[in-house]
Amino acid sequence: MSVQPVLISGQWLPSAGQETFQAVDPSTKQPLALRFPISPWAEIEAVIRHASEAAAIVRSWPGERFASFLEDYACRIETHAADLIAIAHRETGLPVEPRLKTAELPRTVNQLRQAAACARDGSWATATIDTKSNIRAQFGPIGPVVVFGPNNFPYAYNGIAGGDFASAVAAGNPVIAKGHSSHPGTTLRLAQLCHEAAQATGMPAGFVQLIYRTSHADGYKLVSHPLIGASGYTGARSTGLSLKDAADKGGKPFYCELSSVNPVFVLPGALQERLPAVVDEFVGSCLMGAGQFCTNPGLVVVSEGASSEQFISAVAARFDAAPVGTMLSGGVESNFRAGLVALQQAGATVVCGNKPADHHRYCYANTLLRVSGEDYLKKPHGLQSEAFGNASLVVVARDLAQMIAIAKTLEGNLTGGLYTDTQGSDDAAYHDLAPWIREKVGRLLNDKMPTGVAVVSSMNHGGPFPATGHPGFTAVGFPGSIHRFAMLQSYDNVRVHRLPPALRDKNPTGKQWRLIDGNWSQADVP
Amino acid sequence: MSVQPVLISGQWLPSAGQETFQAVDPSTKQPLALRFPISPWAEIEAVIRHASEAAAIVRSWPGERFASFLEDYACRIETHAADLIAIAHRETGLPVEPRLKTAELPRTVNQLRQAAACARDGSWATATIDTKSNIRAQFGPIGPVVVFGPNNFPYAYNGIAGGDFASAVAAGNPVIAKGHSSHPGTTLRLAQLCHEAAQATGMPAGFVQLIYRTSHADGYKLVSHPLIGASGYTGARSTGLSLKDAADKGGKPFYCELSSVNPVFVLPGALQERLPAVVDEFVGSCLMGAGQFCTNPGLVVVSEGASSEQFISAVAARFDAAPVGTMLSGGVESNFRAGLVALQQAGATVVCGNKPADHHRYCYANTLLRVSGEDYLKKPHGLQSEAFGNASLVVVARDLAQMIAIAKTLEGNLTGGLYTDTQGSDDAAYHDLAPWIREKVGRLLNDKMPTGVAVVSSMNHGGPFPATGHPGFTAVGFPGSIHRFAMLQSYDNVRVHRLPPALRDKNPTGKQWRLIDGNWSQADVP
Repeated sequence: MSVQPVLISGQWLPSAGQETFQAVDPSTKQPLALRFPISPWAEIEAVIRHASEAAAIVRSWPGERFASFLEDYACRIETHAADLIAIAHRETGLPVEPRLKTAELPRTVNQLRQAAACARDGSWATATIDTKSNIRAQFGPIGPVVVFGPNNFPYAYNGIAGGDFASAVAAGNPVIAKGHSSHPGTTLRLAQLCHEAAQATGMPAGFVQLIYRTSHADGYKLVSHPLIGASGYTGARSTGLSLKDAADKGGKPFYCELSSVNPVFVLPGALQERLPAVVDEFVGSCLMGAGQFCTNPGLVVVSEGASSEQFISAVAARFDAAPVGTMLSGGVESNFRAGLVALQQAGATVVCGNKPADHHRYCYANTLLRVSGEDYLKKPHGLQSEAFGNASLVVVARDLAQMIAIAKTLEGNLTGGLYTDTQGSDDAAYHDLAPWIREKVGRLLNDKMPTGVAVVSSMNHGGPFPATGHPGFTAVGFPGSIHRFAMLQSYDNVRVHRLPPALRDKNPTGKQWRLIDGNWSQADVP
Repeated sequence: MSVQPVLISGQWLPSAGQETFQAVDPSTKQPLALRFPISPWAEIEAVIRHASEAAAIVRSWPGERFASFLEDYACRIETHAADLIAIAHRETGLPVEPRLKTAELPRTVNQLRQAAACARDGSWATATIDTKSNIRAQFGPIGPVVVFGPNNFPYAYNGIAGGDFASAVAAGNPVIAKGHSSHPGTTLRLAQLCHEAAQATGMPAGFVQLIYRTSHADGYKLVSHPLIGASGYTGARSTGLSLKDAADKGGKPFYCELSSVNPVFVLPGALQERLPAVVDEFVGSCLMGAGQFCTNPGLVVVSEGASSEQFISAVAARFDAAPVGTMLSGGVESNFRAGLVALQQAGATVVCGNKPADHHRYCYANTLLRVSGEDYLKKPHGLQSEAFGNASLVVVARDLAQMIAIAKTLEGNLTGGLYTDTQGSDDAAYHDLAPWIREKVGRLLNDKMPTGVAVVSSMNHGGPFPATGHPGFTAVGFPGSIHRFAMLQSYDNVRVHRLPPALRDKNPTGKQWRLIDGNWSQADVP
């Protein structure tokens, strides 16, 4: 069986690697036809060198060039949507409708176009001019970016098409994409389109490259290599921490999204006011995509009482009645089951589910667990174990004081939320509780479930460790996400004809926002 | 002899530590009178807890509160300048005029006031509003900040008064200052004024705290503690890397300024046009403050030829004739001498200096070394060893191609510069060479020496590893430096009365810059 090629320096080449792997159809547990290579170090090193050469070629290119490439690529994805959807559905088991076709693929195309708009506009670079000292600064490309895509978003977080890819390119950086092993065919197809777009828009050979898999040790060498600028990683916590450690030692920024249980605190008034609606929203958010979202609500905190018992019963009934979604891979299923075991070992009891569902595909019953606030506080660490999938743990707190105590134990999360009534009866509790959640999460939600990450400038898809490695950056939303892949470049006394266009007196487009003597302006330097 | 107290939770208390240390007058090599404690872990842990409590108290305070505190403190420093200057002069050997009195102390006061202005204005927080999705975000405080001040700026980088302190406070964070062991008396005096200012402006007890020294192991526990938000460190590379490693493992941002040789490339036309002026500027920059600046020009690259030989001879003559400055400590002198040995072992030869100067104080002769471009390229790593002090290494390159090859070997630096003629004869060389320097440095200078770091919005006092740990941040300049100590906080569907004032429709001051639907504005949300 032939092995699929890697994309190196603008060419589809056979990998020098001897080892190969195949993806598996999670709906049938059967291996898929295509075979993909594991790249050896010499090959990875060549990829790095080519990326570095590409970085040197494009470093003074105007944003327009990157914008054209991203937009051309977005069009190609739309043109070949049917093909991409068929492949991704087979490799991930994610539903075609609405997930792949109506939600994720359009979102991916939208991200590429938003990144393109930012690259063209240039305002993301925060051009800063101090006229008195004649010192001028802007953000510029950081150097080749390695992107490790996760299993759960075959397009929107794909190493060769997703948000990290788009933001790295918008900043003017070559990308080395590391495909996820569970959907290599989708990644290959995207990379073909990406490569065509790069050729059509005149990008240099090493600007976009693709490998599928490396040894762990080679991954560490890759992210810490002196010629690498930074890396983006979305995936399992243990792998991410090992890569982060290597990158940190090499002094290379490593943006990682590792894990999150996304606590939702449901205050008593909300349940009294609209229990069925809250149940609806929670069940929908928790079971969507078999719960395989970074922002899945895995921890729900309620207050002791009849309403909360009704909430738990209603959710359990809905969980039992709902179809059981297919999981992305055997690894996801086994990690999910291990997560459920860890939660039980820490003191949680099963309300419903926690059993095999269908042996012909990767899946496990929709599962609800519960624990008292008192027991939670005995083992807050163990009870924040992530069971990535269609499960959630309800903590039944004695009172508001205990809810606050629980909030104080939270690890860093991507999101945290509070449900409150609309008439003000929860206002005092919100006031006392919300600040403790606020400091532990990147995005604070109110009366809204955390799944669904809008690609807007005000989004923060990030949060304190261990949700990510740095609480100051977002992986979603423009221009914010671009800043991860930029270095600050100050120019001191540099003669005007040697300055980048955005730092000269004349506004290069008449529209770029620049910080001139402390004020944001689209005008020329006066 | 009594031991000086530590500042914990708003009180000057005797340390529980049994071990103590004294500073040394570097002009006499005699120990100074005051004795300072080494804090044990239990004491440090109490400090962390108090800082965390203070963070909870101030987290929703308006910027005005932090501004008032910083401004009150700045006034107190001015009022007590004479006292502060006498102590710092004794502890550091730095000249009173112009260094301490006319340059550093006013700069420090200016930094505190600029930080205050940013805190009051609020624009630093980059309030971002997307009206369509009703998601809103801003930067908020990251949590208690630990600041490790360096030896070479007793005020402007002091843990309890310098740029890291000012920017951490401007973001709304309590500070745990760790004084430098070579000027604990200066730090104590500053902390007394800081504490008075905190009391006068109603800051909570644990908002500013001071310890002088910890064991290495306790330092690692401190920077990685779950209740800590981030740390700022300026100092030796080895100590900084160990602390960074600990902080990285704990997922805590660690902003460090570690080392930099600040390469200056002198192109042929510049020497032909104005050799005496270039010699003047270089000698002044290299010997000022006995060369003990982070931005000292420690590596000069010239092109083979008569002008370069004249440059070297002229610099050597000036180095021999110039007074030899007093170094900050015995450690600085011994590290400096070790640095010179390392450079020679890597192939550099001594042009002048490299001998003891005055045994009664810490100092060593002004030293110039040289090496050929060819020999440099054999050991580029060893020849970038930092000899922190009054020395520089001249690399004599064969031609422009070799200069570029040298630039490509550079490690990350705070600054890099090019000297060029004013008539255009160096234009082509600048064009080919500058981009390679640009990507290795935070601040690119043209016809200007790197010492002298203006506190302006466009400054970048930062750069790629190992100059710092992240090339996207600056330690000097507002509002940029404040972002290091902030976390991104998004609010999704949060009801308007629960939003922070800057994220409501009405502009809180009528002047705060906010990014509304992609445009910067000082207006209300339309």
